[in-house]
Amino acid sequence: MTDGNGTGLRAGRQLSLGAFLLESGHHIAAWRDPASPRAAGLDFRHYVRAAKAAEAAKFDLVFLADSASIRGFDSPSFPFEERGVRLEPLTLLSALAAVTERIGLVGTASTTYNDPFNIARRFASLDLLSGGRAGWNLVTSSNESDPGNFGQHGPVPHAERYRRAAEFAEVVDGLWGSLDASALRYDKASGVLFDKEGLHPLHHEGHYFNVRGPLNVPPSPQGRPVLVQAGSSDDGRETAARTAEAVFVAYQSFSEARDYYGDVKGRLGKYGRHPDELKILPGVFPVVGRTEAEAREKFESLQNLVDPVVGLGLLKTVAGGIDLSAYPLDGPLPEVPETNSGKSRQKLLLELARRENYSIRQLYLHIAGARGHWQLVGTAAEIADQLEYYFRNEAADGFNVMAPQLEWGLDDFIELVIPELRRRGLFRTEYGGRTLRDHLGLARPSGRRRFAPIAAGSSYSEAAAE
Amino acid sequence: MTDGNGTGLRAGRQLSLGAFLLESGHHIAAWRDPASPRAAGLDFRHYVRAAKAAEAAKFDLVFLADSASIRGFDSPSFPFEERGVRLEPLTLLSALAAVTERIGLVGTASTTYNDPFNIARRFASLDLLSGGRAGWNLVTSSNESDPGNFGQHGPVPHAERYRRAAEFAEVVDGLWGSLDASALRYDKASGVLFDKEGLHPLHHEGHYFNVRGPLNVPPSPQGRPVLVQAGSSDDGRETAARTAEAVFVAYQSFSEARDYYGDVKGRLGKYGRHPDELKILPGVFPVVGRTEAEAREKFESLQNLVDPVVGLGLLKTVAGGIDLSAYPLDGPLPEVPETNSGKSRQKLLLELARRENYSIRQLYLHIAGARGHWQLVGTAAEIADQLEYYFRNEAADGFNVMAPQLEWGLDDFIELVIPELRRRGLFRTEYGGRTLRDHLGLARPSGRRRFAPIAAGSSYSEAAAE
Repeated sequence: MTDGNGTGLRAGRQLSLGAFLLESGHHIAAWRDPASPRAAGLDFRHYVRAAKAAEAAKFDLVFLADSASIRGFDSPSFPFEERGVRLEPLTLLSALAAVTERIGLVGTASTTYNDPFNIARRFASLDLLSGGRAGWNLVTSSNESDPGNFGQHGPVPHAERYRRAAEFAEVVDGLWGSLDASALRYDKASGVLFDKEGLHPLHHEGHYFNVRGPLNVPPSPQGRPVLVQAGSSDDGRETAARTAEAVFVAYQSFSEARDYYGDVKGRLGKYGRHPDELKILPGVFPVVGRTEAEAREKFESLQNLVDPVVGLGLLKTVAGGIDLSAYPLDGPLPEVPETNSGKSRQKLLLELARRENYSIRQLYLHIAGARGHWQLVGTAAEIADQLEYYFRNEAADGFNVMAPQLEWGLDDFIELVIPELRRRGLFRTEYGGRTLRDHLGLARPSGRRRFAPIAAGSSYSEAAAE
Repeated sequence: MTDGNGTGLRAGRQLSLGAFLLESGHHIAAWRDPASPRAAGLDFRHYVRAAKAAEAAKFDLVFLADSASIRGFDSPSFPFEERGVRLEPLTLLSALAAVTERIGLVGTASTTYNDPFNIARRFASLDLLSGGRAGWNLVTSSNESDPGNFGQHGPVPHAERYRRAAEFAEVVDGLWGSLDASALRYDKASGVLFDKEGLHPLHHEGHYFNVRGPLNVPPSPQGRPVLVQAGSSDDGRETAARTAEAVFVAYQSFSEARDYYGDVKGRLGKYGRHPDELKILPGVFPVVGRTEAEAREKFESLQNLVDPVVGLGLLKTVAGGIDLSAYPLDGPLPEVPETNSGKSRQKLLLELARRENYSIRQLYLHIAGARGHWQLVGTAAEIADQLEYYFRNEAADGFNVMAPQLEWGLDDFIELVIPELRRRGLFRTEYGGRTLRDHLGLARPSGRRRFAPIAAGSSYSEAAAE
């Protein structure tokens, strides 16, 4: 093993891999691929196949997103896209727990439209029945479609969501530490089942929640579920530094990813945490071929399935709400008035279109496929080069693999890229342990409450102090 | 097949059987039985074994109770009893769905401390991934331990709970009918995924809930999950007659059971429902032996494990709060002042104790074992006689079998009683269909909203009209 050109590699350090299982796959048109099963997001066998393939390849975890509504059913492109019609993630993960043995099971659940006792109990139950393989991806819900299903007229404002999330995480983590395994004696001879000393009611009285506890599920072999987060705003970074054990982030360039990595790792110290206590896993959308041409061909086969209505719908967002459907698809981008908001990514995209002389179709295809994620199209060696570079240069501890399509797309990654990573000494050939914490290299938490107080000087602390 | 001595048997009518899986079993001391696994309520393999045994025996369903707290941890008998420390039922059922193929999966979830969109989505997901085998046992929560985990200072009052439950059921059922299977086109050639005609937002605006819908999970092969209830109060009966498809009830005598059966079946007409659209399944606690002596011996082996502290705790409730622990266990029951509340069962028990000259120990053992359920101790023929009598005489459509202990206790029932029921033509030898509705003989629901308006003249209607 070489030290590469970076500074971040300690001896034997290996990368972590998640398999993000999303309906037919992460390409926006994956559902139209001939190999994709019909209604993949509702097909348990489809997920079993993918989870077993990921486990055979020794991925650290499978990762499931959440959707508490049919998204955007008032948009013109509605009928042509997957819209969050899928199995509820914890239901699905619980079923997957029964047909897998080692792989971690990370599910997304929102703090905005749930209750902390219920969430603590469900993840603790999954953790216990899977033998210590559960993780909770804590998110807040900001989309426009969910609130109506929970009695709300619109999304909860950002600061409010984060304040609630911080207290929610506090309560859940407190509940996970509220019943010692040693409290459960089950001594048949004496008839003593409980030892009351091991029960630690929380008596939490907060702004959003009053929760007595203790939880009625004891710790699993990994102590408690792994706490995963996804936020990249300042509030999100601070929350992650204080409480998360893994973060899933979406970045398109090395410099963005390294900035994020350095920033967030740098925030851990003030909470008394070591940088290794938080694993940073950017999403990557890999299209792999045995040759570069084959990879491009595979990518094109998906790109060709993007319906113009879907592409134009995406462009409308990018172009500040302007409807481009009246212009010729293969003609140039018309003049689009500048928006005055801080939508820097949108501005960059429009500049790119001008510079590259993109047609309308070319521009929407540029953004449509991977839906804004880091896209790698190439051979296994080329893709492994990129992953290694990020990993060795303090931009990633591993990756959440967002296969463009979940049959051949995931299989390609497993058959071609994983062996290449192994040749480089970057990825395991066997699981070293049985729990998700074992796979990620995270310690079993000790103590009943883990989170340090919120540090001063962030909008998060201001929101929390309100 | 004979017509027996009753009037309720139509040609070929067979009884339904549920296997109620509760921790080590339903005897209060089952956890101390040498054959019970340690911490059975937390042991996934224990539940897999029991569910597979029940499926091999062609039970209609497995049934799981819920507990959203550690119960009664301030009571003196606390350390000596199972107290609801167990896996969350929907998590567990989802995992069981992956390792079974035919048996129905009925889980309890409370309308008091949940949200209807989340509950609708979880059961619909379980229903879909199990191929149409899910059932929801709708309950309200009245115990003293749960409220503190959900920000409440005490139980929600009865009428309030039922009013919320009625609206909750309405919303859940509405959501289950809000996305037609035909809405999901997934037409790869044309690129059309959704047909908007098949989306039916609810736009429910009620007293407790505002829910837009539609649900983001389509119907399973059985249309929607089976709606099960458990209430026996007047409100509970009326709710069942209006909305339930199966009820689980606890009665100790034939006359009680038949009265309930006649009463509830008689209420269906006013909601435009046929009596067969609701299956009434009393709980039964069977202790089976090859001889009567063997059955008694098995029962005694469990009774001997009841700790006096646990028995006295139960008696305290029965005796109007009076602590009997200062009196000799094997001496007579002291004078207990009459309580003026309508606690008729408690009065009957005290009268029984006097009549039979029960010692304190004998009295608590009388009530401890089956925790107030219908207890049958005998040979397979004797037990089958009882079940058949109830079934043929309009007291039951089947039974929820509450095995005293979930290894030998459930196996005894399967090995001895089931064959006896089959000899009498009362129970299937093979599943006739694949869904829970198939097993129970319930039609696949049609239409989007099923519940008739609440009928006038019950406390339930008064509460709902408030």
